[in-house]
Amino acid sequence: MNIKVVLEYDGSGFAGWQQQAKGRTVEAELKRALKSITGQAITVYGAGRTDAGAHAEGQVANFRTDGRITPQRLMAALNARLPEDVAVLSAEAVPEDFHARYSARWRRYRYRFLDRPARPALERGRCWHVRNRLDVDAMSKAASALVGKHDWTSFCSASEPADSRVREMRSARVARHGDFVEVELVAEGFLRGLVRSIAGALAEVGLGRRSPDWVGKVLQARDRRQAPRTAPAGGLTLMEVVY
Amino acid sequence: MNIKVVLEYDGSGFAGWQQQAKGRTVEAELKRALKSITGQAITVYGAGRTDAGAHAEGQVANFRTDGRITPQRLMAALNARLPEDVAVLSAEAVPEDFHARYSARWRRYRYRFLDRPARPALERGRCWHVRNRLDVDAMSKAASALVGKHDWTSFCSASEPADSRVREMRSARVARHGDFVEVELVAEGFLRGLVRSIAGALAEVGLGRRSPDWVGKVLQARDRRQAPRTAPAGGLTLMEVVY
Repeated sequence: MNIKVVLEYDGSGFAGWQQQAKGRTVEAELKRALKSITGQAITVYGAGRTDAGAHAEGQVANFRTDGRITPQRLMAALNARLPEDVAVLSAEAVPEDFHARYSARWRRYRYRFLDRPARPALERGRCWHVRNRLDVDAMSKAASALVGKHDWTSFCSASEPADSRVREMRSARVARHGDFVEVELVAEGFLRGLVRSIAGALAEVGLGRRSPDWVGKVLQARDRRQAPRTAPAGGLTLMEVVY
Repeated sequence: MNIKVVLEYDGSGFAGWQQQAKGRTVEAELKRALKSITGQAITVYGAGRTDAGAHAEGQVANFRTDGRITPQRLMAALNARLPEDVAVLSAEAVPEDFHARYSARWRRYRYRFLDRPARPALERGRCWHVRNRLDVDAMSKAASALVGKHDWTSFCSASEPADSRVREMRSARVARHGDFVEVELVAEGFLRGLVRSIAGALAEVGLGRRSPDWVGKVLQARDRRQAPRTAPAGGLTLMEVVY
């Protein structure tokens, strides 16, 4: 049986999604819990490889089981075994050809800033704190240049293959909620480092160091050296994956 | 100089606001930071004695300094010395007779539920997780009986003096935000245990175990034994103190 699960996690204590030799990862915790339930080593496919310190409200993964446990009971068993900073929000049987990563049509990410003089106590590790007020209108204007099909060389990691850096950005919105400013990006796929690099660029505009049209110019330049510093991982949350 | 500060804290790691022989407290951390800055032992007055595990977005405290440091610089110095789970949001000079506790006109508390099958990962320790859906309309109806001047014997700690349990509740609102249900109470003063006891009663109504008019009946009974279990502290946040 092919099972799809939706996961929420607090990334603060994780070295990211993907299993690796060193460090605690969400994928490894999920595999450990599955092994404890089924007695078997089960391969897990995740929709997005979130960075160390980045969070998820709607990460998706799939894996095969022998079907002796219903998805509903599996969810309860996983939540009983997973550490407190990861939870399974839903579990369902899906067609055999469903793949969390390759079947995804759109992904939605949120990057969150806190712009006030005082550092955060409650939301520490879950936002990027900037001391000066961000100009949300300027950021929105800058973000509009990102919508559409583009080569993201300027904003993605140099480790991404140069011949496959084109993706379609469906929407790029910036909104204020009290002292928080949220950037929401929806795209068919996100190259490594993309959201945090875009967030870093939008911060430059929001803080008045660059004009709104500068972000579009950096994008058009297809030159990684023109992009500013990458925003910290704690502000980033994978919100949703749509199939 | 009499200084008023507004504080935010994540109560998860604290044994509450008030200094005590054992356990980490917000008051003790604030006094420690003040001593490190001024070299003096400074008495601090807090607006509300939040419980162990309860949070604050707008706790208020006041204390005297010799005035050699401006409130603005004091705030920066405090935020540099306080642990990461406490932050000073603002600091200002106030009249000599200002007292964080006795000058307060209204206080606003929020109690937050999460009602979904899966336990919280991101908001763990910051809400009360109930597995079944809460009926917000029924809870709102029940909460309306709380508004006005009442003797809160049924809902406050038995440690409160029997002859001073009358307080005015200005408003009592219940609202849903996605999978979160928030109860917001505004009153001139809150007796010990009041919000968590009311939240426990509203949960009974929201889960359909009691009818909406039951809460008003418990209030009128002035009998602590009629109230249900107290809701966990993690769902509670002191939002604001108005002077």
